[in-house]
Amino acid sequence: MPAATATATAVAAEPSVCAPLPVLGRDVAVPLVTGGEVTYAALDQAASAPALQRVWDDVAAYAPYYGSVHRGAGYLSQLSTDLFENARRTVAEFLDCRDGDEVVFTRSTTDSLNLLAAALPDGCEVFVFETEHHAALLPWRRAGRVTFLDAPDSPAQAVAALERALADRDPYGPALVCVTGASNVTGELWPVRELAAAAHAHGARIVLDAAQLAPHRAVSVRELDVDWVAFSGHKLYAPFGSGVLAGRADWLREAEPYLAGGGASRTVVRRADGGVDVRWHETAARHEAGSPNVIGAYAVASACKALTEAGFEALAAREDALVCAVREGLADVPEVRFLSLFGDDAPRVGVLSFVVDGWNSSHFAAALSAEYGIGVRDGLFCAHPLVRRLLGGDTGGAGECGAPEPGALNAIRVSFGAGTPEEHVARFVRAVRELVRDGARWTYRTVDGRCVPDASGRA
Amino acid sequence: MPAATATATAVAAEPSVCAPLPVLGRDVAVPLVTGGEVTYAALDQAASAPALQRVWDDVAAYAPYYGSVHRGAGYLSQLSTDLFENARRTVAEFLDCRDGDEVVFTRSTTDSLNLLAAALPDGCEVFVFETEHHAALLPWRRAGRVTFLDAPDSPAQAVAALERALADRDPYGPALVCVTGASNVTGELWPVRELAAAAHAHGARIVLDAAQLAPHRAVSVRELDVDWVAFSGHKLYAPFGSGVLAGRADWLREAEPYLAGGGASRTVVRRADGGVDVRWHETAARHEAGSPNVIGAYAVASACKALTEAGFEALAAREDALVCAVREGLADVPEVRFLSLFGDDAPRVGVLSFVVDGWNSSHFAAALSAEYGIGVRDGLFCAHPLVRRLLGGDTGGAGECGAPEPGALNAIRVSFGAGTPEEHVARFVRAVRELVRDGARWTYRTVDGRCVPDASGRA
Repeated sequence: MPAATATATAVAAEPSVCAPLPVLGRDVAVPLVTGGEVTYAALDQAASAPALQRVWDDVAAYAPYYGSVHRGAGYLSQLSTDLFENARRTVAEFLDCRDGDEVVFTRSTTDSLNLLAAALPDGCEVFVFETEHHAALLPWRRAGRVTFLDAPDSPAQAVAALERALADRDPYGPALVCVTGASNVTGELWPVRELAAAAHAHGARIVLDAAQLAPHRAVSVRELDVDWVAFSGHKLYAPFGSGVLAGRADWLREAEPYLAGGGASRTVVRRADGGVDVRWHETAARHEAGSPNVIGAYAVASACKALTEAGFEALAAREDALVCAVREGLADVPEVRFLSLFGDDAPRVGVLSFVVDGWNSSHFAAALSAEYGIGVRDGLFCAHPLVRRLLGGDTGGAGECGAPEPGALNAIRVSFGAGTPEEHVARFVRAVRELVRDGARWTYRTVDGRCVPDASGRA
Repeated sequence: MPAATATATAVAAEPSVCAPLPVLGRDVAVPLVTGGEVTYAALDQAASAPALQRVWDDVAAYAPYYGSVHRGAGYLSQLSTDLFENARRTVAEFLDCRDGDEVVFTRSTTDSLNLLAAALPDGCEVFVFETEHHAALLPWRRAGRVTFLDAPDSPAQAVAALERALADRDPYGPALVCVTGASNVTGELWPVRELAAAAHAHGARIVLDAAQLAPHRAVSVRELDVDWVAFSGHKLYAPFGSGVLAGRADWLREAEPYLAGGGASRTVVRRADGGVDVRWHETAARHEAGSPNVIGAYAVASACKALTEAGFEALAAREDALVCAVREGLADVPEVRFLSLFGDDAPRVGVLSFVVDGWNSSHFAAALSAEYGIGVRDGLFCAHPLVRRLLGGDTGGAGECGAPEPGALNAIRVSFGAGTPEEHVARFVRAVRELVRDGARWTYRTVDGRCVPDASGRA
């Protein structure tokens, strides 16, 4: 029996490993520049994950019953309102929230963290590692004084660095720590519980950026003892424009509404002097002005249920096997260098970034797509300071979010989800080995910031 | 031939009137408290409109091809990026934008107007009528000095009042006028072109709240000469969490990004002193941090195409006929009093609000739902100052957005869309006549802010 088959059998025989969850697009065929078609391997799931089939089915079943939420007397409005409020409860259960925690539906993790930034009390100090995604790195600068902490070499060092920084602060003022649960670049797990303990020991609060964690691991607000958690539907197999901020009600209740408008306002009265007085809601609605995206919220709740039922232990075991298949499959290819802060063997979710010696990362990623039907991401992954540090050099003008400039120093990221079949990962390993060994079979050039196959043809 | 049939024939024979556009939910049956089921009549379309069947079909066709926008090297990421940017162009065409205008995808009109409020130049004065929806009334108070203008009695008086207010302002500072295209309460059309001319004559800019206008009438940024326009997908038969702000680029480009995060940031660099420098995008992406809601944007573009192809002249003619059917059908019921600022015969979209003498509006709306399967809205419609003025009295604690308190003074709103069949409107007219003549057949009570059929049964 060949080694590859033996590995596949071993994975299948492991009792805690579940089958891939059915997702949309699993049968989509894409053209290859070298001729023919192949089933698309969606290996950029750290950016956006395909919808779970169950999420789609739930949305499709609900769509004819869509109605105005919180706003109508009709049957479908009442049904939609119940559905929306039930979605809130489902998310609270999914996150194991405390009594009294609020679940606010936002549009994404970025939106959730911007909302929390807008709700910081006056004079709040914020502590954040330079290793964070820009969504967790940048929103705080408008709201208060931000201390950026250097990238740590280990989880223990991260805790120690935070302890030191918090010990230096004014112990009586409000403070917030923002930390990722799993890096969107290296996939490495951060010591959230320990960082939360450190924060609380110094009178600070902590928000968990769970954008990369929630799709892959059970998140318990109670057990991790974090004050807030944020995640995105579009990374949780529910790409319908909704995200979540959940956690302590007090700062949210005391803050100005995130958006001013209907739904957030209880009463609006014109004053005798011509001005306007507003009384705002004090629940989650305070920060959800405008008609709620009920389809988005319902989709998130559906995904929460589907993942809970599949079981995170089984999902994580499956993903560990996929990560292992990549590491072992490329172990004897020295040109491939994985990026990590905490070491190659640190626990991680199914997210791996790497560079290939002698290759421009954008060209490598373009070849994976055009010659193998594999979708990965190249660039600096909206975490510029971290990737620059890991690449150990100047990246020039490279790595603009949304438009990496090929030719400059950047990296390649491969990432898996609950629906990723073994074949996609096996194909990825084979593709990387062939490209390194044989080179690309086609020529590529950059057009409008995208690296695409060149009309001049085969390499 | 009975009169009702004659009217229906006349409507059908009118060459410019089109058939209802197919929408989701057109076959949904809901239970009646008096027994049996009936097809749901969604007559709260000013709040949220059902998805066009075509929008749903487009979303369903795209969903398996969903991928990360602006972020991936794979085939589906590139396809999704193209789809998203093409959606922007489709919206620009739909609104007849000028060269150089930006189209920013937001989550809703509320979000769009909050974004513009956050982008106002320093010292900007804002002028807004008290008659606006809270989404257009409230966002400006944080950003600058707001002048609230009294409700006018006619379109001409609106223009004159704006002229007077602008004449009093500092003529050298920046100023913005915010005005609705069609009232969400009365459905009445506002003199947008004339207000825009008045604004520009005094060096002010103008933003059009087209939430209620865009689903019903062609909107041309160029012809109306407005600086910005905002609308919501969920009122435009595309309820997938997206809205639009379109218009002049300069204030948007010069403003701080609406959300801080990836996608909005071009480059992020850690400085030697420990801080962080950010260079932001200067296009629409500047205000779209986080992964775009590509399904939402695609749905909006699909709706724009469907409405343009159906033709707004035909859609408006059809809607005029429906409004006419309500007015004529209830003309001899003196207990029904319609609310209007500009007079009962003023041009309007398919939105009508009214009160019924001797009835609590919430009970009336509950009876329409429970006994006739008709969904309308009761309350103050997130336009409290306007509805209070129209009701001519104190509304007590009533009309909280999202939870009107039955027993207090509020109103009932009925509203149509491109998919509303004649039968729904005929049923509504019959239901109102029967309720006024015979009273409700059931008893109702208020539970958790909702007026619902009482277990004690028939009235």
